[in-house]
Amino acid sequence: IGRGMVAFVCFLDMASEETVRKLTKHLTNVRLSENDAGRRVSVCDLQGDILIIPQASLGGRLRGKSMQYHMNVDKVLGKALYQKFCQSVRTAVEEVSSGNVKCGVYGARQILSTDTNGPFTHIIDV
Amino acid sequence: IGRGMVAFVCFLDMASEETVRKLTKHLTNVRLSENDAGRRVSVCDLQGDILIIPQASLGGRLRGKSMQYHMNVDKVLGKALYQKFCQSVRTAVEEVSSGNVKCGVYGARQILSTDTNGPFTHIIDV
Repeated sequence: IGRGMVAFVCFLDMASEETVRKLTKHLTNVRLSENDAGRRVSVCDLQGDILIIPQASLGGRLRGKSMQYHMNVDKVLGKALYQKFCQSVRTAVEEVSSGNVKCGVYGARQILSTDTNGPFTHIIDV
Repeated sequence: IGRGMVAFVCFLDMASEETVRKLTKHLTNVRLSENDAGRRVSVCDLQGDILIIPQASLGGRLRGKSMQYHMNVDKVLGKALYQKFCQSVRTAVEEVSSGNVKCGVYGARQILSTDTNGPFTHIIDV
């Protein structure tokens, strides 16, 4: 993608389609980006791109020297929610912005290169 | 840095030198990295490098369409804790690993380029 946002997403075992709806609203509306004038705007206001990356490791909790993933949703539901989320973000962005939405493949290892000026990293729990 | 770990760090208003001590222990000991055989090992086991980046935006909480930062430590204490943390990680790594530790500048905007094969992103609360 070009200028925009990278979103790492993980669904925990309470996740539902309502989670997908809320998360889509937050991702496209929250003022996390900076425009050329230095004001905080949403990624859609910026006409920015969005790269969505499935990231089950975010659901880990530290136990001793290891991360444990008991809170994560099972993989079948996780994949379904991830695909719904990608489609939901695409639909929401298309309505208001010329930005592109690109999505990683659920369950696959992925090569990621990023260049950021900031960087700003935010955590949003839904 | 070369192969290793990028750590974004944010201190909330309960943070203390004890937080720095615990965080150093976790960062250098928890098995978050993958060795060539595919086993999870610590970044020190890997003799990997560590890049530490101050990232106050992680302490934000979503309120409406904006992130608010009321939980973050004040900047003077934040800078002191950040510098202690960088020194603490350097000392801990030097004892057990040939890896390099590099640190960003507290309070400054920074250009970051990363290339990851994974990626694995983890959240550790102390």
